[in-house]
Amino acid sequence: MSFNVTILGTGAAVPTLNRGTTAQLVNCQQRSILIDCGEATQLQMRKFKVKFQNIQLVLISHLHGDHVFGLPGLISTMQLLGRTEAILIVGPKGIKEFLLSQFKLVGLYNGFPINFTELEPNQEGIVFEDKCLTIKTFPLNHRIATHGYRIDEKPGNRRLDKEAFDETGVSNSYINKLITGEDIQDNNGVIVRSEDVTYAPKPTKSYAFCSDTAYFPPIIEHLKDVDLLYHEATFNDKDSERAAETFHSTAKQAATIALKANAKRLILGHFSARYRTMDDHLEEAKSIFDRVYIPEDGEFFNV
Amino acid sequence: MSFNVTILGTGAAVPTLNRGTTAQLVNCQQRSILIDCGEATQLQMRKFKVKFQNIQLVLISHLHGDHVFGLPGLISTMQLLGRTEAILIVGPKGIKEFLLSQFKLVGLYNGFPINFTELEPNQEGIVFEDKCLTIKTFPLNHRIATHGYRIDEKPGNRRLDKEAFDETGVSNSYINKLITGEDIQDNNGVIVRSEDVTYAPKPTKSYAFCSDTAYFPPIIEHLKDVDLLYHEATFNDKDSERAAETFHSTAKQAATIALKANAKRLILGHFSARYRTMDDHLEEAKSIFDRVYIPEDGEFFNV
Repeated sequence: MSFNVTILGTGAAVPTLNRGTTAQLVNCQQRSILIDCGEATQLQMRKFKVKFQNIQLVLISHLHGDHVFGLPGLISTMQLLGRTEAILIVGPKGIKEFLLSQFKLVGLYNGFPINFTELEPNQEGIVFEDKCLTIKTFPLNHRIATHGYRIDEKPGNRRLDKEAFDETGVSNSYINKLITGEDIQDNNGVIVRSEDVTYAPKPTKSYAFCSDTAYFPPIIEHLKDVDLLYHEATFNDKDSERAAETFHSTAKQAATIALKANAKRLILGHFSARYRTMDDHLEEAKSIFDRVYIPEDGEFFNV
Repeated sequence: MSFNVTILGTGAAVPTLNRGTTAQLVNCQQRSILIDCGEATQLQMRKFKVKFQNIQLVLISHLHGDHVFGLPGLISTMQLLGRTEAILIVGPKGIKEFLLSQFKLVGLYNGFPINFTELEPNQEGIVFEDKCLTIKTFPLNHRIATHGYRIDEKPGNRRLDKEAFDETGVSNSYINKLITGEDIQDNNGVIVRSEDVTYAPKPTKSYAFCSDTAYFPPIIEHLKDVDLLYHEATFNDKDSERAAETFHSTAKQAATIALKANAKRLILGHFSARYRTMDDHLEEAKSIFDRVYIPEDGEFFNV
């Protein structure tokens, strides 16, 4: 099954023509998950041909405009285009009022159900779970309550060893039980053990999202061995004081978190508009953690 | 002095890559006025190189998302980029709560002063006036309270007839009085009448904005002899039932208003995304009123 991320906006604070504000679309095992929704996210989705009516779940990190100002418009558009399926929005305390107070005033919204899970400021643990994946939250360290998220696939079925299975001579109708780990006995009394005719399930993958945050080592335990880590890097080294003042990170700090968490790969983002090129970000991050990427808006990553 | 309009968004309801939602920038005698502010208006401004820090006045027609969802982001960006000058927002009752309830939640706004003038549902008359221009409002006919606006330049100074003035032999220092219509007597007792040495002021111009609205003849009296009229034309003739149901207009209805108001020119807009070309709109409108234009986003009109 696929597990991938499209980075819809790589900019900080203010949208520009080159970099939208924060939003990412995660597809994990047929679940379509939007993380954050800065202004014009619905336009970024059109530009990068991302289907937004499939989104079932929205994760919001925090209530700063560059992470939420696109949400009312997106929900309105979903409704105007005929959506009937419910959506679940997980985010900080206040996200419900943020959205519903606007819909009350613009008098527009009377469509599909919107469900909310509001998080306490320092909440940790599972916020969503189904048969395919688990989503956990953990606190980041920003000027207001801000939530990181980690999405872990659950193991799928075991994979059939076709040759070993064929040697047993039992009917194909037992395959469904065997790949879920169940041993079987057929009508002729033949016993087949699952582990003798199947391989272990495909290894599961994981993705974590950390934005916005100062350098904050307590998150490392939540990021252990993650396959793909997104960590904000608003600034580079020469603006490290500004990073500390505003509770943002430098590229080097993001790389340090990736290294200490034993992440496999790192994507940076939330870049301040002050930088003409991202060369310094890349060089500084690579000095600590080599498997680091500087995305452009619309870039796609397999987890 | 210049008086012009940049159409920032020509689409209805839902922003697309081709047509943004409603927003227009009017420059009138060095005043910079934004009318409506759909999502991503700040990006349209960047795209079309419109300076948004100069905007002193915002006129909002009504509280539907495609006319206001860009306002929180625009104000935030103005603040983040260091604006200190006050701004005045004129719009329907509720516009203040719409904006301030969001800033309360996103905890971001603590910048330049925002003043509000909230309109009663059927308010008519002057909503803003200074030495250069007058802005009047009048009710449109939409599903919720919706306000049309008309901007009239005030007459400038009379224009000097250099030859006639020179013949009087009085000092140049009297020019400033004479062009404001004042008669003078100089130290030698020479009397000069303003009207003998000046021409009438340059004719004043006017611009009116009508969106969203069903076909609504009571607005005609407010639009009399307007130089440039913007009237929504969400639909064309084959969708005239849909227009009536949703309190929108067809191209022909917009043209009829322009004709009856004796407008000089007409711009259509707020086009439904269902139309691949605007040829039918143009043809139908032209059958009634010839001086009609179908703008693209970013198009610029001198009033």
